[in-house]
Amino acid sequence: MIGGMQDWKLRITHLIDYAAREHGPREIVTRWADGRIDRTNWAGVALEAKKLSQALVKLGCKTGDRIGTIAMNHHRHLSAWYGAIGFGGVIHTINVRLFDEDLTYIINHAEDKVILYDAQFQPLIDRLRPHLKTVEHYICFDRDDGYPALLAPEDGDYEWADGDERDPCMLCYTSGTTGHPKGVLYQHRSHMLHALTEVGPAGFDLSCQAALLPIVPMFHAASWGLPFAGAAAGVKFVFSATNEAPVLHQLMLDEGITHSAGVPTVWLAMFQHLDAQIAAGKEAGLGKLRLVTIGGTAAPRMMIERLMKQGIRVGHAWGMTETSPIGTMGSPTWNWDDLTLDEQIEIVAKQGRVPFGVELRVVDDNGNALPRDGTSSGSLHVRGPWVIKRYFKAEADATGEDQWFDTGDVAVIHPDGTMQITDRAKDVIKSGGEWISSAELENAAVGTPGVALAAAIGVYHPKWDERPILLAVKSPGASVTEADVMDYLASRVAKWWLPDEIHFVDSLPQTGTGKVQKAELRKSYRDYQLKSLAQ
Amino acid sequence: MIGGMQDWKLRITHLIDYAAREHGPREIVTRWADGRIDRTNWAGVALEAKKLSQALVKLGCKTGDRIGTIAMNHHRHLSAWYGAIGFGGVIHTINVRLFDEDLTYIINHAEDKVILYDAQFQPLIDRLRPHLKTVEHYICFDRDDGYPALLAPEDGDYEWADGDERDPCMLCYTSGTTGHPKGVLYQHRSHMLHALTEVGPAGFDLSCQAALLPIVPMFHAASWGLPFAGAAAGVKFVFSATNEAPVLHQLMLDEGITHSAGVPTVWLAMFQHLDAQIAAGKEAGLGKLRLVTIGGTAAPRMMIERLMKQGIRVGHAWGMTETSPIGTMGSPTWNWDDLTLDEQIEIVAKQGRVPFGVELRVVDDNGNALPRDGTSSGSLHVRGPWVIKRYFKAEADATGEDQWFDTGDVAVIHPDGTMQITDRAKDVIKSGGEWISSAELENAAVGTPGVALAAAIGVYHPKWDERPILLAVKSPGASVTEADVMDYLASRVAKWWLPDEIHFVDSLPQTGTGKVQKAELRKSYRDYQLKSLAQ
Repeated sequence: MIGGMQDWKLRITHLIDYAAREHGPREIVTRWADGRIDRTNWAGVALEAKKLSQALVKLGCKTGDRIGTIAMNHHRHLSAWYGAIGFGGVIHTINVRLFDEDLTYIINHAEDKVILYDAQFQPLIDRLRPHLKTVEHYICFDRDDGYPALLAPEDGDYEWADGDERDPCMLCYTSGTTGHPKGVLYQHRSHMLHALTEVGPAGFDLSCQAALLPIVPMFHAASWGLPFAGAAAGVKFVFSATNEAPVLHQLMLDEGITHSAGVPTVWLAMFQHLDAQIAAGKEAGLGKLRLVTIGGTAAPRMMIERLMKQGIRVGHAWGMTETSPIGTMGSPTWNWDDLTLDEQIEIVAKQGRVPFGVELRVVDDNGNALPRDGTSSGSLHVRGPWVIKRYFKAEADATGEDQWFDTGDVAVIHPDGTMQITDRAKDVIKSGGEWISSAELENAAVGTPGVALAAAIGVYHPKWDERPILLAVKSPGASVTEADVMDYLASRVAKWWLPDEIHFVDSLPQTGTGKVQKAELRKSYRDYQLKSLAQ
Repeated sequence: MIGGMQDWKLRITHLIDYAAREHGPREIVTRWADGRIDRTNWAGVALEAKKLSQALVKLGCKTGDRIGTIAMNHHRHLSAWYGAIGFGGVIHTINVRLFDEDLTYIINHAEDKVILYDAQFQPLIDRLRPHLKTVEHYICFDRDDGYPALLAPEDGDYEWADGDERDPCMLCYTSGTTGHPKGVLYQHRSHMLHALTEVGPAGFDLSCQAALLPIVPMFHAASWGLPFAGAAAGVKFVFSATNEAPVLHQLMLDEGITHSAGVPTVWLAMFQHLDAQIAAGKEAGLGKLRLVTIGGTAAPRMMIERLMKQGIRVGHAWGMTETSPIGTMGSPTWNWDDLTLDEQIEIVAKQGRVPFGVELRVVDDNGNALPRDGTSSGSLHVRGPWVIKRYFKAEADATGEDQWFDTGDVAVIHPDGTMQITDRAKDVIKSGGEWISSAELENAAVGTPGVALAAAIGVYHPKWDERPILLAVKSPGASVTEADVMDYLASRVAKWWLPDEIHFVDSLPQTGTGKVQKAELRKSYRDYQLKSLAQ
């Protein structure tokens, strides 16, 4: 049919062009680890990105080449994202918290041609370098002879590389608890649609009025897409190269932060800091902060409650590297204003609803879709424009029929579409044909005063197949007892969920990213005999 | 490169699927002209849309066929949009306010196969019918033997037609002041990207918390995209089949309307109604209304001020049928909270800034881009993913180099990107090599107490080429004089802009959509001799 609308590709470079053109003077602030503050703006970041594209082309980089970064959050890292994508390359953000062997595997698997890194990671670079097979250039962000010297000869008079909107633009590896890390290769198109969705009021609610402090690192799950969504909205970005609570708190106050996003642990640390401030009679408010997005792992109810009681909207998000990462986001329901604070907290404590684009379902062990009734628990499947199809270099698709991707999570979906994670599929405890959520047991257990960390695992039982035991780590100096924990749990979980035994341990095995290694624990307790079964 | 993200087409049917699945019970309310209220919801609208797709296929409709509507705003009209698109067709919303000859031309040019219409337009249908060459079926929305009877045999068990995301989905004709109306053929992809952008907080700020009363008719410029954006956000829609101010006011209060959108005239009528309510000691508040978007033509400053003083955010938008229609939208600037109300109103009175996706420029008569300095006035060009490339059935593109589309407006762009329309290009008055904005003169003139309508045109002057004269219509019973108008203008426009003469007239020629026909006026005054030049 003759007629129609203009050609315009969903290319990431449109985002930085827009931010530079329409929000050029909007500030981009970096607080370095040593306390120095750098101030630039979207126009400055765009110029630096263009210079980097020019420099990378001169270094011999070609379309599709991977540019790795081992770096914290700062404006040079932001310009590197756009500069690496801008010449037609793929930005590969590397998770600095992984073990050396994982990092070596990842960089060799990605075939990174260039690595951009922070000076603080020089020892890491020195250790890895002998094992890296494809890296031709190592460039330090914050040394004068590094990034600044690389960009100095360039003038920024550069036209972004053209290409298809389904070309890759970014590569992130999952940090699974078992097996080799796997690469997720994002496309210009998928990241663009993801960013547009994040901007909405039911998402991160971003406009040029927002001053956004992303506490989620730029090396974690595409930094939740914020560097892209922030450009589409023209936000003020404030980056901190360290995540110490006192630093973040001061930045919130000094820079008028309105929006922040991070995993639960950073907020726990923030609360401790604020309590110390209160005790010392110092400033303990959170300034203009009005929206906090929490994801990565489930946020405890008390965290949500404390923030909401300060008048801050809390968005609880769920996702994974394979979903770009936004799968669901919490946002006020249509009848929000008619709910009590308790009811609101109850909703926020769940994982939220899908934004337009994403679809969820839960299925039973035979792959049959279960009803969205809030009680039918099953494997959580997801699909949509920013959900993985195939891992980088994999020989087969990661999805099943109709593109459904099995997340490895166990969840229920409530009638209104709110999703609630109940456990990781492999961590679920199967007792008498029913499922006990190890995650829910643990979340409840860490509410006991004096319990710092807890892990629930299933051990063999001749009658019930499995019964839960709880391994707990005490807070320093705490005198909590097994009976205290059991009492605390008794009113919070079903009676048959109560662990058969509670063991206090000095520590629990964790991965490089701080996840408890349940697989290790299960291995250690494989032949464990419950005391109640002892003859 | 092996790896990547899922296939997912930007097809409009995803929107109604999402709304039905995730916001199924969210209400869709219709207030018919006779006062009856119908209540359905997104699930209900989606079901009706599927039934319509089934029925249209049975009527012999094929992919790409145009389905015309001659109808006001109501939920059946909404379901008809999705149902006409759903089987692979093109919804063609017909502007009921046009003259018969234009309507006949449009429907024949569009080759509509089916016409869905409201019973109140039966006389119009009867007049047009003998002249319509392609229409095979006429179906009345609100007669039992019409739409309800058509859908009754269907079960809604229908899978939307698949296709390319660049397939057409909608056709709207421009109502230009000269020449034949021209068709703009929107695509699934262009409308989807437009909708995603509108949802954002700098746009219509839509979430499932919104209760949206679109006063803009569904037959006007794709109803500003709201039927699509509203589905992406899961809003509660409230439709009114009439635009009488008392009806709209009551709906706002009864239905908890938070968002509304319409042209300036509806707000003028609303203010008159509210003043009458105040005088009668009745309810004159606007309930929960918090965001009003005004577009179609420039909103007078006093309108913006009155709404903002009631605590309502006003978004002043600019666009045209050829831009889907959003070109710019007003939204708070980053430093909004530091501005006085007067400064804020000053910003809102301009036409706003581009959302991500749209680009603007102003060019001089030689096509050279002018600086964004707030003073350089030139022809306004626009481009982007939802801007027209070629009119329906046209033999050449509507755009110039690099896809720029000349809007026919004259504008300045301020350094922060805010765009300000100064006039329609063909209405600008060229005096002594400088441009006088007829629109600004008229806007100022209608502020004079007693002036209901005004039109400024240029007439021949031997020294200055053109000089402005002002034609004004008095409000009923007003005793305003030429001197009153001149005095009022003196403090509001540059001295050399003051019209050489002011003539009171009984009426001004208008198009079917209420635009003053400047071309007619210019023709009438082509040989007019200014009194100052008389011998």
